[in-house]
Amino acid sequence: MQMVAVATLTAGVAGASGYAGRELLRLIDGHPALFLQTAQARSDGFDALDVATLAGCDIAFLALPHGESHALGEALAETGTLVVDLGSDFRLDPGWVYALPELNRAEIAGARRIASPGCYATATLLALAPLAEAGLVDWPVAVDGKSGVSGAGRTPSERTHLSEVQGGVQPYSVTGHRHIAEIEAMLGSIAGEEARVTFTPHLAPHSRGLEVTCYVRLRRPLGQAELEALLRDRYAGEAFVQVTQRPHPGLLHGANACHLGVWADERTGSAIVAAAIDNLVKGAAGQALQSANIALGLPETDGLTARGLGL
Amino acid sequence: MQMVAVATLTAGVAGASGYAGRELLRLIDGHPALFLQTAQARSDGFDALDVATLAGCDIAFLALPHGESHALGEALAETGTLVVDLGSDFRLDPGWVYALPELNRAEIAGARRIASPGCYATATLLALAPLAEAGLVDWPVAVDGKSGVSGAGRTPSERTHLSEVQGGVQPYSVTGHRHIAEIEAMLGSIAGEEARVTFTPHLAPHSRGLEVTCYVRLRRPLGQAELEALLRDRYAGEAFVQVTQRPHPGLLHGANACHLGVWADERTGSAIVAAAIDNLVKGAAGQALQSANIALGLPETDGLTARGLGL
Amino acid sequence: MQMVAVATLTAGVAGASGYAGRELLRLIDGHPALFLQTAQARSDGFDALDVATLAGCDIAFLALPHGESHALGEALAETGTLVVDLGSDFRLDPGWVYALPELNRAEIAGARRIASPGCYATATLLALAPLAEAGLVDWPVAVDGKSGVSGAGRTPSERTHLSEVQGGVQPYSVTGHRHIAEIEAMLGSIAGEEARVTFTPHLAPHSRGLEVTCYVRLRRPLGQAELEALLRDRYAGEAFVQVTQRPHPGLLHGANACHLGVWADERTGSAIVAAAIDNLVKGAAGQALQSANIALGLPETDGLTARGLGL
Amino acid sequence: MQMVAVATLTAGVAGASGYAGRELLRLIDGHPALFLQTAQARSDGFDALDVATLAGCDIAFLALPHGESHALGEALAETGTLVVDLGSDFRLDPGWVYALPELNRAEIAGARRIASPGCYATATLLALAPLAEAGLVDWPVAVDGKSGVSGAGRTPSERTHLSEVQGGVQPYSVTGHRHIAEIEAMLGSIAGEEARVTFTPHLAPHSRGLEVTCYVRLRRPLGQAELEALLRDRYAGEAFVQVTQRPHPGLLHGANACHLGVWADERTGSAIVAAAIDNLVKGAAGQALQSANIALGLPETDGLTARGLGL
Repeated sequence: MQMVAVATLTAGVAGASGYAGRELLRLIDGHPALFLQTAQARSDGFDALDVATLAGCDIAFLALPHGESHALGEALAETGTLVVDLGSDFRLDPGWVYALPELNRAEIAGARRIASPGCYATATLLALAPLAEAGLVDWPVAVDGKSGVSGAGRTPSERTHLSEVQGGVQPYSVTGHRHIAEIEAMLGSIAGEEARVTFTPHLAPHSRGLEVTCYVRLRRPLGQAELEALLRDRYAGEAFVQVTQRPHPGLLHGANACHLGVWADERTGSAIVAAAIDNLVKGAAGQALQSANIALGLPETDGLTARGLGL
Repeated sequence: MQMVAVATLTAGVAGASGYAGRELLRLIDGHPALFLQTAQARSDGFDALDVATLAGCDIAFLALPHGESHALGEALAETGTLVVDLGSDFRLDPGWVYALPELNRAEIAGARRIASPGCYATATLLALAPLAEAGLVDWPVAVDGKSGVSGAGRTPSERTHLSEVQGGVQPYSVTGHRHIAEIEAMLGSIAGEEARVTFTPHLAPHSRGLEVTCYVRLRRPLGQAELEALLRDRYAGEAFVQVTQRPHPGLLHGANACHLGVWADERTGSAIVAAAIDNLVKGAAGQALQSANIALGLPETDGLTARGLGL
Repeated sequence: MQMVAVATLTAGVAGASGYAGRELLRLIDGHPALFLQTAQARSDGFDALDVATLAGCDIAFLALPHGESHALGEALAETGTLVVDLGSDFRLDPGWVYALPELNRAEIAGARRIASPGCYATATLLALAPLAEAGLVDWPVAVDGKSGVSGAGRTPSERTHLSEVQGGVQPYSVTGHRHIAEIEAMLGSIAGEEARVTFTPHLAPHSRGLEVTCYVRLRRPLGQAELEALLRDRYAGEAFVQVTQRPHPGLLHGANACHLGVWADERTGSAIVAAAIDNLVKGAAGQALQSANIALGLPETDGLTARGLGL
Repeated sequence: MQMVAVATLTAGVAGASGYAGRELLRLIDGHPALFLQTAQARSDGFDALDVATLAGCDIAFLALPHGESHALGEALAETGTLVVDLGSDFRLDPGWVYALPELNRAEIAGARRIASPGCYATATLLALAPLAEAGLVDWPVAVDGKSGVSGAGRTPSERTHLSEVQGGVQPYSVTGHRHIAEIEAMLGSIAGEEARVTFTPHLAPHSRGLEVTCYVRLRRPLGQAELEALLRDRYAGEAFVQVTQRPHPGLLHGANACHLGVWADERTGSAIVAAAIDNLVKGAAGQALQSANIALGLPETDGLTARGLGL
């Protein structure tokens, strides 16, 4: 018999009807210290969007469509409530902390305005940070991303129609993906030099799950053992990042995990680094909650210990 | 009212029970000038493997597991029968013609020993040939391949188990894929210089369909219009290669087609070239039949005009 | 060397941008005697809808949304052009022939106004006709249908969103499916008595493909051999219907085929009959073309001999 | 701030490498009162099978292949350890309690030998129990089941090969499914009369998830409102059973939930009842844990409160 102390803080979610919002509700429901005060959305079955109620919460999560958080986020932040925005509105805004805990945990601890990274950026940054920090990258890096359809959001479109995405992996928004800016900014800051990425997102015929494979020309040759050691050492002690032989998003559904794989391609002097996540958890709602835990002074893994479904 | 003349040549298939073999049967069934004389395999429902019967055909297709064609292929070729091998056994053998019609049609015309390229090689070579021929490539090129599960063959394994591949795209056999050799050999021959490729195959949760995305650092900057023109001009008049905005294997199921997309990434001085095929048709049985048509003096498109199912 | 005579008749398609319309274009493209004169739709890339051009064709196919064929169909039929409607508008209209060739081929031969059955009705009718004709059915029959997402059409909706349909088979429109009327009408006519069906359509996570499983209480006991013989005899000589051990839509993609399976459940005095089709081919465009061939006096299998992709 | 008391009991799992076994590990990992003492399997990475260690646990779960639990289960039960078998070995054995908590919770409370129902049986019994208990069923009932591929287990076979199951829903093991006996036995016991079921399992192209649709001829007519009330009343207060408009396994991945839908088909005097579950949770590991909680005197929902992933 042991006794466990449980504190209760109130949380609000704006944008609860979208996929990231729903995922926040699921995770908050299993969180030992958070109580869902209000779930707001324009759809039936939710509370109406209301700043005052959100401001009355200890923490407000914004899971609105990209571009729709700006006014609400600033207004809430003014009230002193901790705000975690899952959209792209504040990711390049110096007044907000771009929060990827494994890369800048200390900054998050004191923050009240948190911009949570996008799913592609999360996977790419976790894959490339160890090499970038070590000054090993001959830029640009080619990044090939594959996302399930849930990444396109809940609004039906040709891109989400099962018949249009079945039977193959297809590139989309080539070279112009809106997330390159946040990737390059963070990588450049880590590397202490200008970072350049060539990025191609692909749509794959599944719902959850995202994988990126990064092709890095190395400034000096590294063998398989060195590369693996570099990644393992960098993420030693991290609860949510693991170096594996088989990074596969299908193993991680529902988990706030990132699985990394790394391979030396000595013939070409390159390293190949792959990262797999659940785009709705470590790529969205889970990571937002992880940052919230840090900012609120809670254990970082609170509400985030569930294993991936695995199949 | 028009009159159409139809000649009949006999064909044999060894390895008819595998996925490439079955696909050959399907295509030969719809071919106006070929008659299936014998479909051989170790499984029930097929003729037993028999060299003499194959040697009695005008053309013998070998669709055996990789490594099992060698003795049979040489024995058949000795008899003078046209042999088209779909396995990897002869792809690097100078006594055989490595047959990718859009790249070396003239060589195929007179050949009696034909090694048909692998699915990943076909897509990669068609994507990169125009740039390689023009001397534009700063090697190595990073090639990110995604294949459906049918590419792993019919024998059940963990890799083909739906529960193991669902929910994400996963890298496998990284850096060591057996097809790099044929890709580099052909590209080097086209480019007139040593060609180097970093290649990562991925397994995706669908059956047919294969896509590769190639990341090319350019020796001199090229814009979007120039890149598109380069590809369009290179493949002008080709029945089976098309430059499109949306290369997607899911549109090509059943068709002997390759769809190419190209994008200039001027920020990084790179070109991104994507190729989509049905791995069992243009990546295997269809291409073998295309080469057979050429070698037999038949119209190249005979039996290969079906459109992809599209969804 | 043989000589083949090829006649050319002109065909027009109204509604060419939808999934059934696209499928008609694909099939007409491979038809030896039809030439596509006009492909009409409201979308870009097609001809505008125009009655006069359609009326100038030997045959006009209407693949419009349900309820939109009525005026156009009547107007075209007045001009004497052979009209084949794929929608539901005329299926219960006594001025039109409800055309399921394996059940009423003779009526179709002389028809100029043809209403082609829906996909669920086609599978259900082919499954149940032999038992109904033999007076063996204790009505009602329970019919459990499973369709891929392409059956919901091309317009994106929650129902077609991959994330909403993944991970399970779900019932929809229970008891109220609009196709019950045509099923019961045709079965009643065949059986010479009132026929009653309890029907539940389900949405399954794939694109093409439809299966129905019918649960029939028998008026007198029949064993496995008798049931199989009943079905085999009924469809002996039919090019497109086959009795198999494993009716599976996944084997039939692209083919104008219906695979039937039948099992005696002697414990309960029941027969279970399953039918598998490609909903876009035997369930829509292929069957419409089959009826058109009959009505035009062409060989019934013209343009419809392609095998299913099989995987 | 609240204080929560947590007791710790030890659990062992035999058969930890299979899909149900893995799922037990996942659930035990999140259970507040169970500690995983030993995870045993023949595969690498697990403890070897060992009766003594299992006997030392407060509870032993057996997740072995069907037919392999018998000797181990009896031996363990002799030692007094609580045994919960997930296989079919003891489901018809009167010395063991067939444990479906919503139907026979009281029996489970005092049990030490528990046989947990199969996935198809769970869904079918929860769907039909209210009607059977009320004496409303004109037997036989037609039950149409659809399962994802994970239900076929982890050993690769043709049945689990993605290429063989894609593109459609297919019947298998028609009329002979081994689970009919347990379904009829439990239904007969509930109904107080002989119960007969015609059952056809189908394989669908997804991993987790199972749905059954039951076609019931009613002994007296019931309308939609009465049917819904019957089900809602029967399961009022149940944590894991819910009556919904849209029973869909894809909403329940990872959850110990059963969603029921019911529809009156007044035209035919029938009721249609559908049940959706995650076959690995409410259909296997979750239900076993639910019964274990009851038998151990723990709160029934311990470790089972996670919501389904939803997409």
